[in-house]
Amino acid sequence: MKKNVLIIGAGGVAQVVAHKCAQNNDVLGDINIASRTKAKCDAIVASVHEKNALKQEGVLAGHALDAMDIEATKALIRSTNSEIVINVGTAFLNMSVMRACLDTGTAYIDTAIHEEPGKICETPPWYGNYEWKRADEAAEKGVTVILGAGFDPGVVNAYAALAKNDYFDKVTDVDIVDINAGSHGKYFATNFDPEINFREFTGVVYSWQNGEWQTNKMFEIGKTYDLPVVGPSKAYLCGHDEVHSLAKNMDGADVRFWMGFGDHYINVFTVLKSIGLLSEQPVKLANGDEVVPLKVVKACLPDPASLAPEYTGKTCIGDFVKGTKDGKEREVFIYNVADHKDAYNEVGSQGISYTAGVPPVAAAMLVATGEWDVKRMANVEELDPRPFLNILNHNGLPTRIKDADGDRALDFS
Amino acid sequence: MKKNVLIIGAGGVAQVVAHKCAQNNDVLGDINIASRTKAKCDAIVASVHEKNALKQEGVLAGHALDAMDIEATKALIRSTNSEIVINVGTAFLNMSVMRACLDTGTAYIDTAIHEEPGKICETPPWYGNYEWKRADEAAEKGVTVILGAGFDPGVVNAYAALAKNDYFDKVTDVDIVDINAGSHGKYFATNFDPEINFREFTGVVYSWQNGEWQTNKMFEIGKTYDLPVVGPSKAYLCGHDEVHSLAKNMDGADVRFWMGFGDHYINVFTVLKSIGLLSEQPVKLANGDEVVPLKVVKACLPDPASLAPEYTGKTCIGDFVKGTKDGKEREVFIYNVADHKDAYNEVGSQGISYTAGVPPVAAAMLVATGEWDVKRMANVEELDPRPFLNILNHNGLPTRIKDADGDRALDFS
Repeated sequence: MKKNVLIIGAGGVAQVVAHKCAQNNDVLGDINIASRTKAKCDAIVASVHEKNALKQEGVLAGHALDAMDIEATKALIRSTNSEIVINVGTAFLNMSVMRACLDTGTAYIDTAIHEEPGKICETPPWYGNYEWKRADEAAEKGVTVILGAGFDPGVVNAYAALAKNDYFDKVTDVDIVDINAGSHGKYFATNFDPEINFREFTGVVYSWQNGEWQTNKMFEIGKTYDLPVVGPSKAYLCGHDEVHSLAKNMDGADVRFWMGFGDHYINVFTVLKSIGLLSEQPVKLANGDEVVPLKVVKACLPDPASLAPEYTGKTCIGDFVKGTKDGKEREVFIYNVADHKDAYNEVGSQGISYTAGVPPVAAAMLVATGEWDVKRMANVEELDPRPFLNILNHNGLPTRIKDADGDRALDFS
Repeated sequence: MKKNVLIIGAGGVAQVVAHKCAQNNDVLGDINIASRTKAKCDAIVASVHEKNALKQEGVLAGHALDAMDIEATKALIRSTNSEIVINVGTAFLNMSVMRACLDTGTAYIDTAIHEEPGKICETPPWYGNYEWKRADEAAEKGVTVILGAGFDPGVVNAYAALAKNDYFDKVTDVDIVDINAGSHGKYFATNFDPEINFREFTGVVYSWQNGEWQTNKMFEIGKTYDLPVVGPSKAYLCGHDEVHSLAKNMDGADVRFWMGFGDHYINVFTVLKSIGLLSEQPVKLANGDEVVPLKVVKACLPDPASLAPEYTGKTCIGDFVKGTKDGKEREVFIYNVADHKDAYNEVGSQGISYTAGVPPVAAAMLVATGEWDVKRMANVEELDPRPFLNILNHNGLPTRIKDADGDRALDFS
């Protein structure tokens, strides 16, 4: 039943994935890590050994790979006998890595939607532009492809499914709220790859409301949410991956995504964007060279992985779900609180990487056990949320609920 | 007596220089303009013809030249029979162009201190690092070299000399204040080459006080000056070229430079600087390419010359001079007010380019007439200010004075 895993990427999230695969290598099998820079893979391998994270003796190895090279990826999948690929490399790689999996019959799991260089914020639903075009092929070939199995997208999609299955007859509103109340102590930094992070916020903001796509500008609509543990937090309506699948899978409910931003972040973002420094389109320098400004901003900002040692504070991410049950209106908040320092102590990464990296390992474990080995393409809300949330309860990301009956942990065992 | 002029550079300031040379080509002779991009020279030539700016028939031509190539510059000086070089190209060129002039016995005039790529804010006095090292050679060869003959440095140095000669027995304080109260209507733009502009403010702030160099941080010391025409204006102690020569030439008086900045400018500057985007040191991109962030910021910002058509409002630049006369303390403010729209209407450039571009032409005219043809290296305050300010009075930059006796124009004819 154990299945060998190939991890694509060697950033902060990949580090978490590797540690969690190691901690669960009685369910998963060999662990191979591949990135353009093998030294980064080797550093992760060393970190896993340093924490004695391998639950039982097993393979753990790093490999140099340009994952844009589909044939090279297929060769590595074959040479390592990998049966599940967890793709946590840059989102520009998704369709190349998925192609390698479809060609080799390997299960594929990612945590973020595909991005194409030079394009930002394409026609909604975003999944329709790339991933879903491969759905028929995945079904025909019987290859399991699980899209967006990080925290958001990922766990928040499972929360929405849980609400729909267990708490409502009809869901009318899903408001996903992501608050990072942590502090990294730097003047400015992004918690993910700056290139991907900023691309999320430079385009139009899509939300699904009243049965159609609504558009707003970034930071146009703000709202203060009073959340467990982290307290009152200002959040803004943003575009985000999960809105683009939940819009289809929540029986017509409104779906919005809200992310917390401090005034300082907004100011820096506004300055950079207004000047054109967040553009993915190249500019011509005085000497004639062409450079993409966003790539220069990325080079100037701290490496997100480097934030981990000094990161303190907590994140709170969850779904406010409204609807009706037994003829009565109700509202629940299903959520998780994670701690940056705890994450660092356990796996050497900060909390944002932790919340993104643990869930795809839980998904891989469910593919290994067969519960999520669905032999087709699926977004997380299309799968049974309970076994997934159960694994997360035992792997550092416990689910809680707050509603009219109070604030309590949820048990799925 | 007429002397042929070679203008190095084809930006906004060069455009002003060309127009003013043309308007005074009864005193100056042939006008040649050289820049890496000949099309920019040709556009300036066309602009001069469009305004019918040539006072009398004469040569006006553009040339392609990489002025870092000393031999090419010497060849162009010789082939055009140029006797005066007005260098208003990038400040990185100064020492190369000066070398070409010293080798060919050609008078040299510039408007800003030499800059070396990769170095910012070197040991004071800045002129001692490059220009003054050539002073002996200029004197031995009998070549006239006039340093910093723009507005600031330049006219403000002449104001200081005028104060010292005519208004004081002893000067104790020279506070140069530069306020641009104009509006260009863009989110953010610099009035000069952004690369040079930001380099002025990213290093330590040097001022000359109590007979020694004082250091402060940028925006550490602010002060509101209530100025003629533009009104109360917040200015900050900055490093600037003229402090580095006036410190030597004002008999020990304190010399400070203050520049006006709005809160928006300071915010944008602070964000860019804090992130490292104003650095002149290259950063390595993810693909391994090395790029200087400041050059990318420059590429994203509006071309300063492009601001001219929409620029409105006025500048006020002058010297608050304190000291004693006939045993009594006194204070004078010697200044000029210029108008962006007037500048555009006359020469097609904005006011900042205008104030920088007219004075070196006045200096060239004085070299042509012999009054400033001193056959050695000099900063402006070492030369007689009256004929210089007289020419400026008749060329769009009139000098005024405000003191206990009121606010009035000064006549030097």
